[in-house]
Amino acid sequence: MKKIAILGMGTVGQGLYEILMERKEKIEEVIQDTFEISAVLVSNLEKERNLAPTVKITNDFTEILEDEEIDIVVELTGALEQGYDYIKSSLEKGKDVVTANKSVISKYYDSLHEIAAKEGRSLLYEASVGGGIPIIKPLKEEILINDIESIQGILNGTCNYILSRLFQEKISYGEILKDAQRLGYAEADPTADVEGLDSMRKLRILSSIAYHTSIDEEEIETYGISTIIKEDVDYIEHMDSTLKLLGMSKLTEEGYVASVEPTIVDKSDYFATVDMAFNSISFVGHNIGPLKFYGYGAGKLPTGDAVARDVIDILLTHATVNLNHDKKEFKNLNESAKGQYYLRISNNTNTFRKISDKFQPIEFKEKNDIAYFVFKNANRDEIIEYVDKLGIYPRDFFLAKVGY
Amino acid sequence: MKKIAILGMGTVGQGLYEILMERKEKIEEVIQDTFEISAVLVSNLEKERNLAPTVKITNDFTEILEDEEIDIVVELTGALEQGYDYIKSSLEKGKDVVTANKSVISKYYDSLHEIAAKEGRSLLYEASVGGGIPIIKPLKEEILINDIESIQGILNGTCNYILSRLFQEKISYGEILKDAQRLGYAEADPTADVEGLDSMRKLRILSSIAYHTSIDEEEIETYGISTIIKEDVDYIEHMDSTLKLLGMSKLTEEGYVASVEPTIVDKSDYFATVDMAFNSISFVGHNIGPLKFYGYGAGKLPTGDAVARDVIDILLTHATVNLNHDKKEFKNLNESAKGQYYLRISNNTNTFRKISDKFQPIEFKEKNDIAYFVFKNANRDEIIEYVDKLGIYPRDFFLAKVGY
Repeated sequence: MKKIAILGMGTVGQGLYEILMERKEKIEEVIQDTFEISAVLVSNLEKERNLAPTVKITNDFTEILEDEEIDIVVELTGALEQGYDYIKSSLEKGKDVVTANKSVISKYYDSLHEIAAKEGRSLLYEASVGGGIPIIKPLKEEILINDIESIQGILNGTCNYILSRLFQEKISYGEILKDAQRLGYAEADPTADVEGLDSMRKLRILSSIAYHTSIDEEEIETYGISTIIKEDVDYIEHMDSTLKLLGMSKLTEEGYVASVEPTIVDKSDYFATVDMAFNSISFVGHNIGPLKFYGYGAGKLPTGDAVARDVIDILLTHATVNLNHDKKEFKNLNESAKGQYYLRISNNTNTFRKISDKFQPIEFKEKNDIAYFVFKNANRDEIIEYVDKLGIYPRDFFLAKVGY
Repeated sequence: MKKIAILGMGTVGQGLYEILMERKEKIEEVIQDTFEISAVLVSNLEKERNLAPTVKITNDFTEILEDEEIDIVVELTGALEQGYDYIKSSLEKGKDVVTANKSVISKYYDSLHEIAAKEGRSLLYEASVGGGIPIIKPLKEEILINDIESIQGILNGTCNYILSRLFQEKISYGEILKDAQRLGYAEADPTADVEGLDSMRKLRILSSIAYHTSIDEEEIETYGISTIIKEDVDYIEHMDSTLKLLGMSKLTEEGYVASVEPTIVDKSDYFATVDMAFNSISFVGHNIGPLKFYGYGAGKLPTGDAVARDVIDILLTHATVNLNHDKKEFKNLNESAKGQYYLRISNNTNTFRKISDKFQPIEFKEKNDIAYFVFKNANRDEIIEYVDKLGIYPRDFFLAKVGY
């Protein structure tokens, strides 16, 4: 008999509970053992919950931590520092841990892996990237027999939902954001999603695994979508393209680049087919070549499904993957990275001329105090720096990479 | 120390050998044990091979079978009946088996799983479907916590290569086939690929796993691409679409449908982005929703990579997945399945009128003794039967499903 505790009974916790209960018999047949969800940690003890009477409901984590019969702790609180404490102390108490908490895994990637390795415990976090998509496990399997060369991904469902509707319906960013908040696709404070921080954390996790290294959050150039206006959508459509918030990292002999930025992709491109709340991750290995994975980036049952797979992996094999073998360090080459860029500025002709003189666009269009530029071989930071020097506010321009 | 034997040192065998040797130390660190490739079975003993001197090269399978120190047999011969004998006798001798042999797994799906279960041995075949794509393992993991509702896939790289070039270059099917044979993308006898048999076998394997059942090869309606002509390509392009050979199965309460057939997909559709020698498989689960997987459908290193993952899984955990739990039977509904169909016939106006009268097309065009029809709600078998009744040769028409 294995005992499981779930910390946090929000959407994903509820989804996990339902999935494990629905398939209890089959899972027990496969793991050749029995299991139960013996405790859940909640903040509100009064709230009515649809749980079996055998499940202990507590708001005191130490009751779970001190219960030596609990083998697996599933951390689904979403909280950063508290989530870290829960995971750390559970591992140190000899419990295996599963989490969906990308903020914690991203910020404490090194220390949590070290603790898990030292304690000989499992630390699995499939649901921290790409919702229900099997990506962490296949990636960990491939790195054993592949040098990974690059990663690309649509990693944030909120942004993808907003961008998809922006290009389908031609209503404003602000209206769609409000609608997304109403429908539960966006948080009341959408900053982490729309400014690219959530994607950045997921890219940090994926890239650190893929390259056997540890890429800090600050090492990733991160830009969001919040300054986009209708005119950007029109211009990008006229390029026969659409816009995605793409996380990307690439490793060469010289070093690596890593960024999250709005990226213009051709309508026939694979990523153009990834719409609404879906996510997709692709990576390239020297033996396997390119692999692409697609599925729901969030949601009660898809994310619950990913968490359930981690729990079952631990029940099956007490899976421990030591990621510290052969750890490498690489140089960050973001500063010198160049690419094709689209820039839209709402300002005046004098400013537009200065920018043209400075960066020599391969495309230029001016209409109603709005200018559109496409630069062929430009560096993102240089453009932003110059635009800033001209006294243009961040809200008055939108910059996107063309292609990836 | 674990000992491995490889049966067949063709392209994939060589790829597997290289991958396992290149990463030997890392794999041993992860499995916390040592391993060696101790024997290979070849047909030509004289051929020079780039193998370590410790590898025993033999053309006598019994030497491998009787060697009690060999733990894992990797069957990569591609042969049907002989491959079956090798796998069966290896399992019965208590050895774990990995194979890339889709013909054997498809034809002997039930009996080989029964033998493996009875002997308590692993039988893994990731590389039998989708080349390097991780699909069998993720699917087996999802079925434990999902009811799978449908599967779609581009399962044959040869067909996809031919179709991609047909639509890019506008040269004839025959010319591209010859080119594909010259480049090694197609066999000297291309029947199994271009007539859909290879895709059918892969769909049989996927569907049987997904639905906890056993769908025989004959239960799948199988059609190929060999009668396509330039005029079909033109007409499909004018529909703003492209053509893929799609394997598809779907399970409802009434029963299932399963087919492999040329399918017209919109240019903005996901499958339209799967080009050349790439494969892709998607399936839908009731918890996870839709998942899509994309990668190389064949090739020395991608397929070798998939085989290597199976070998490592066995080295790690002695993976046994008993697929016989809770086995179900479903009704085949192919006969009554309806859909939108495209039909091109090279014949005469009198014949065209008869077909129009019979099936009431929603689109019809006639030019130079060629007629193009699109039927809204048609049954494939009924169309073929009627066309046959009119005395039209199979080589003189091309039928494709529109959408999926």
